[in-house]
Amino acid sequence: MALEFKRSWSDPELELYRQTVVRFIDEELAPGDEEARKRGHVGHAVWRRAGELGLLCADIPDDWGGGGGDFRHEAVVYEEMARRSLTGMNTSVHAIVAHYLLNHGTEEQKRKYLPRMARGELVGAIAMTEPGTGSDLQAIRTRATRTAEGWRIDGSKTFITNGYLAGLVLVVCKTDPAQRARGTSILIVETEGARGYSVSRVLPKMGLKAQDTSELFFDGVEVPGQNLLGGVEGQGFYQLMSDLPYERLIIGVMALAAMEGAYHATLDYVRERQVFGKPLVEQQNTRFKLAEIATQIMAGRAFIDQCVDRLLRGELDTATASMAKLWGSEAQGRVVDECLQLFGGYGFMDEYVISRMYTDARVQRIYGGTSEIMKEVIARAL
Amino acid sequence: MALEFKRSWSDPELELYRQTVVRFIDEELAPGDEEARKRGHVGHAVWRRAGELGLLCADIPDDWGGGGGDFRHEAVVYEEMARRSLTGMNTSVHAIVAHYLLNHGTEEQKRKYLPRMARGELVGAIAMTEPGTGSDLQAIRTRATRTAEGWRIDGSKTFITNGYLAGLVLVVCKTDPAQRARGTSILIVETEGARGYSVSRVLPKMGLKAQDTSELFFDGVEVPGQNLLGGVEGQGFYQLMSDLPYERLIIGVMALAAMEGAYHATLDYVRERQVFGKPLVEQQNTRFKLAEIATQIMAGRAFIDQCVDRLLRGELDTATASMAKLWGSEAQGRVVDECLQLFGGYGFMDEYVISRMYTDARVQRIYGGTSEIMKEVIARAL
Amino acid sequence: MALEFKRSWSDPELELYRQTVVRFIDEELAPGDEEARKRGHVGHAVWRRAGELGLLCADIPDDWGGGGGDFRHEAVVYEEMARRSLTGMNTSVHAIVAHYLLNHGTEEQKRKYLPRMARGELVGAIAMTEPGTGSDLQAIRTRATRTAEGWRIDGSKTFITNGYLAGLVLVVCKTDPAQRARGTSILIVETEGARGYSVSRVLPKMGLKAQDTSELFFDGVEVPGQNLLGGVEGQGFYQLMSDLPYERLIIGVMALAAMEGAYHATLDYVRERQVFGKPLVEQQNTRFKLAEIATQIMAGRAFIDQCVDRLLRGELDTATASMAKLWGSEAQGRVVDECLQLFGGYGFMDEYVISRMYTDARVQRIYGGTSEIMKEVIARAL
Amino acid sequence: MALEFKRSWSDPELELYRQTVVRFIDEELAPGDEEARKRGHVGHAVWRRAGELGLLCADIPDDWGGGGGDFRHEAVVYEEMARRSLTGMNTSVHAIVAHYLLNHGTEEQKRKYLPRMARGELVGAIAMTEPGTGSDLQAIRTRATRTAEGWRIDGSKTFITNGYLAGLVLVVCKTDPAQRARGTSILIVETEGARGYSVSRVLPKMGLKAQDTSELFFDGVEVPGQNLLGGVEGQGFYQLMSDLPYERLIIGVMALAAMEGAYHATLDYVRERQVFGKPLVEQQNTRFKLAEIATQIMAGRAFIDQCVDRLLRGELDTATASMAKLWGSEAQGRVVDECLQLFGGYGFMDEYVISRMYTDARVQRIYGGTSEIMKEVIARAL
Repeated sequence: MALEFKRSWSDPELELYRQTVVRFIDEELAPGDEEARKRGHVGHAVWRRAGELGLLCADIPDDWGGGGGDFRHEAVVYEEMARRSLTGMNTSVHAIVAHYLLNHGTEEQKRKYLPRMARGELVGAIAMTEPGTGSDLQAIRTRATRTAEGWRIDGSKTFITNGYLAGLVLVVCKTDPAQRARGTSILIVETEGARGYSVSRVLPKMGLKAQDTSELFFDGVEVPGQNLLGGVEGQGFYQLMSDLPYERLIIGVMALAAMEGAYHATLDYVRERQVFGKPLVEQQNTRFKLAEIATQIMAGRAFIDQCVDRLLRGELDTATASMAKLWGSEAQGRVVDECLQLFGGYGFMDEYVISRMYTDARVQRIYGGTSEIMKEVIARAL
Repeated sequence: MALEFKRSWSDPELELYRQTVVRFIDEELAPGDEEARKRGHVGHAVWRRAGELGLLCADIPDDWGGGGGDFRHEAVVYEEMARRSLTGMNTSVHAIVAHYLLNHGTEEQKRKYLPRMARGELVGAIAMTEPGTGSDLQAIRTRATRTAEGWRIDGSKTFITNGYLAGLVLVVCKTDPAQRARGTSILIVETEGARGYSVSRVLPKMGLKAQDTSELFFDGVEVPGQNLLGGVEGQGFYQLMSDLPYERLIIGVMALAAMEGAYHATLDYVRERQVFGKPLVEQQNTRFKLAEIATQIMAGRAFIDQCVDRLLRGELDTATASMAKLWGSEAQGRVVDECLQLFGGYGFMDEYVISRMYTDARVQRIYGGTSEIMKEVIARAL
Repeated sequence: MALEFKRSWSDPELELYRQTVVRFIDEELAPGDEEARKRGHVGHAVWRRAGELGLLCADIPDDWGGGGGDFRHEAVVYEEMARRSLTGMNTSVHAIVAHYLLNHGTEEQKRKYLPRMARGELVGAIAMTEPGTGSDLQAIRTRATRTAEGWRIDGSKTFITNGYLAGLVLVVCKTDPAQRARGTSILIVETEGARGYSVSRVLPKMGLKAQDTSELFFDGVEVPGQNLLGGVEGQGFYQLMSDLPYERLIIGVMALAAMEGAYHATLDYVRERQVFGKPLVEQQNTRFKLAEIATQIMAGRAFIDQCVDRLLRGELDTATASMAKLWGSEAQGRVVDECLQLFGGYGFMDEYVISRMYTDARVQRIYGGTSEIMKEVIARAL
Repeated sequence: MALEFKRSWSDPELELYRQTVVRFIDEELAPGDEEARKRGHVGHAVWRRAGELGLLCADIPDDWGGGGGDFRHEAVVYEEMARRSLTGMNTSVHAIVAHYLLNHGTEEQKRKYLPRMARGELVGAIAMTEPGTGSDLQAIRTRATRTAEGWRIDGSKTFITNGYLAGLVLVVCKTDPAQRARGTSILIVETEGARGYSVSRVLPKMGLKAQDTSELFFDGVEVPGQNLLGGVEGQGFYQLMSDLPYERLIIGVMALAAMEGAYHATLDYVRERQVFGKPLVEQQNTRFKLAEIATQIMAGRAFIDQCVDRLLRGELDTATASMAKLWGSEAQGRVVDECLQLFGGYGFMDEYVISRMYTDARVQRIYGGTSEIMKEVIARAL
């Protein structure tokens, strides 16, 4: 049947795994969500529990303590959280950190950190953006200077996903201000007990209420020499660029799952809700809106699935992934807005998931590169 | 100059009054806004202070304790609050309640309540919507039954603006369930000490955080016979319909002011903000977006001002007012969304007014009659 | 590379066939297009030539004189014409007629007509719509009454694609006005020498200038009994409904090809065109528009290709095909409009293909079921 | 009543004048329109007839043979033609030419040309755009060189409105290629018998079929010294810029009138047209679309009327006029597209006025400065 929104890249084994994910969500994550939204983070326990169940670093080889799966196993987690507007555990940034280690880290770095990340002991974060610096990497001012034993880091970072709970932060630093891209390196900071390291309060924001987006301060934080990612100076820019298709597709995957979640919640609502003596779903306007929404989801599903298939084959380029991010997040914005409208006043109430989906959706066009940045990237490839 | 967004209906006297309003906002309302957003209401003191300064019931004749002004004096208050995203004091519902009393109340009702409303001692609310009942007045189930001394009210109401602080609630009740429109009446409830009356917690919602939207419960609340609005049974439907142009235009007025506020905040931001070595405002995309936004504001300003002029002459019909509400709230949604995008990540942070404007804007397409209801009303008039 | 717009359903053999199609277009069809647009039809010779080259009835088994291919061989023809705005030969309606014969015709009907259609001797048309009757089959008033030898047809039809050149017309008739769906049958009319049959002038229209859309008049046209499609009365409605996925997907396929054609024509133009001393493509606005357009094409390509794959496997349902038609034609409208804008004044001139693409595009949201009908169909499936 | 689309700037005298305009249209212009659309021009006779009736140069003082009226008298003509999709007589370019003469011409130039323009003996045209030159005046290559008696003009111009019938052409020339703006002058060419002057065929275009847009060729055309507009060299750029508010508002005025015409034609159609057993207007989708369209028209009417009032007071700046052009032409595009959709297949047929309105509308976003140029102008003023 047309509207089941099947994934081309799924199979029975993966759907079994999905059931594990759903069970974890229903039993461990969802019950604490309201509290987490008030507090601004989910706490460490649920990360550890996810680690125990094998839901973290699912696409990292088991040699390094990961699940030995592939992108699909990560995607299932993103999808099931996104369709429920459960945003507190940002497992995608965690996965991206793990990938940086896997792809660019030294043998020792992988051995030291990946298993602990897979167990949920270390939550991963990337400290790139600075106050006043959006996607402009050249403008980074956080400075790492050589010391006898390694590096000293000075600067501040903002909008850091997983920032409050992070045990492992990849800090993008200027190691040679005289150079541009070549002057950038990534340093690994273990936050526990790190002198000079501090985290702001969780930043209050419109949506993603349970997500611990924070400001980080580095005031002479010292790290040993082996904490330079990959062990070679000046590779930061290249390391950051190398996995963009993966990172952008994640946002596209979440967008589609969120649209599907919104669609199903809305369909349930308009069937129940009576207006002027008949169910809202019988109004022609309602039916046309739902048809338009379902059509956008079907088109988007085909596109995102095609991108997932390409990624799995190692054939997804940055421009196409940027299209997936752009198209997905823009469509999500439109669709969730129209779904919400069908809820009337209830759509504005925190209690209704559609309300939270609406505010969560807004950041999708911004983070991971704004829609404008995506257009720049795409235009360059034409 | 083109882009000052002048009002056709203003004059120097009104601009002086506007300065009083702005002073009140800057000194009395804005400083407590962050606290009010956390608490969910602004408290009684600021309402009383507004009363002292003559900012409440500004368009009620001074015979009844009002300001003796007209719609423009009300509009100035809505505008200055809307452009700052200060939503805690809903003076428009307060004004609408005062108008119900003025237009339909008995001599005694006017004398008893209007002066206290003008002084801010009694905050006004209208209890119309019920759980499961949107704009469908026929479906109202709150029942008022005759007693020896007057009426007993049983039922519950939801989404009641000013509900938590309200001292005077106009309750829309079925007085004769056998009849449709003719079976509806409005009863005046003074909430202080009213037995059987209770207020839920303030409803947590996406925006309008400082606004005390609440659920109200009426469990055998007794009111004397003279609390029937206008003194004649079965007039409720007619009373609710009689002032729609006024009520809908208010939302249009707020929409335009909010758009202007968003525009100015954004213009300031993009001039300051540097990206890739130059101010954001120098990007062609930014400039085109600002041009589109300014154009929408100019068109909307002309339309809303024309409607205000008509209202002042007593010539604004319901269909045109519904257009003002529809056009204004839809344009506000688009414009604030595009403004926010130019802020990048900061646009998602509570700290930035644009973020609050975005969530506040969403309800404008819903309350006071959804966009869909507006279209029904307009279509009927074609 | 991302932006080649590859088809999932293609292979080297098909691309060879595509070259034949392109050669036919370049050598036989395109040179006469300007003349055909003035005249309102392409003439019979080019249909016969297409038949000789095996480009007609490509997906009809060779037993019946067809090409023995599948939908892909038809699709290639639609695509190469659509991307060049060559609309004079409507091979899709021709194919649909052939499918009606193949799927529902008697052995004799197939033997008699399919080989002649494949040779381009008989151009096929479907006479369904009547003046005042859109997609409402129940309202059909063309009447077929039994005679001694067969049937007599009285009525008139409008908007008949291929109407002027048609040699074989499938006429949807009421055979029993007392019944609804069951009272409808399809009769085969060979137009050559048919007494009582006449064709209006080709209808002058905004686009599809070379396409001979006509009105047909049936004034007591007599056909023998064996001309009842399938030989059983009352099957018309069912026969018309049975191939909708195929018919609607065709329009989606054409939409995507037209979008690709428009995109490439525009990219060429903006690279050449100088404004204010630099190529138009270097303006940020131009680049962002192209990025948005390319993104829509990529998403649409994935969706349409998925639908083609499903059709080939016999798994495409009507609701999904309606989505392909709806999404494709709406996207085509947006994309071609934005492409045209980049041409400035040239975009308005017949001489530029983008101008013709624009007017051709407009009918895609209308014929084969309007966007509104598509939404009805989709909504029913939800 | 709300939806009569009244103009703030009208009065009974003007409405009497409007009746004269309508009578002229009904009796003299409309009957020949189909023929004019085939031929590509309306011929000279109807221009002379318009002159006799006082419909040309209505806002030129009667000292110069004009009507002695103001912009409103011009506007009425534009409106009544635009709402009927009668585009053959471009009286707005004629008026703009007259304004150039009035505002910048020498006493002798005014005396010589204005009365003949008012009588319709000389049709006016402005020859600015060149092949490859859009709004970029700096790029003009048509050269005027001094001769003993005056000037010799060499070059070619394209997209010249009224080009085929023009008796008086204002040619924008480079008189000093070494200078930029200061090197541009306007020369007056009387086309009758001008040696070296030739006109291409009328350019075939998507819409404005009756309008004689042409290419002009100047091959050593000689004009006397007194044909330099204003008598001073190097003033061309300044002369072209000085009346932009007037020129752009005209397009806004036409846009609104066209929208109103489309709305009324559509309302008539959907009331008549039966689908599935009831009038199309009773479908909720139809009613919502009409409500949206009417709302856009009401907002636009308020904006355009405000601009007309400002223009009449001499207070309309270029940025605001550019907004009127931008907003009006974009809204016209959307509205006419949605109206057409409600006509189904008939909307695509030349016979229906909505079809012609659709193609006419497309150029409104392009000529007189594209939407992109408007945005540049507006952004500069912010």
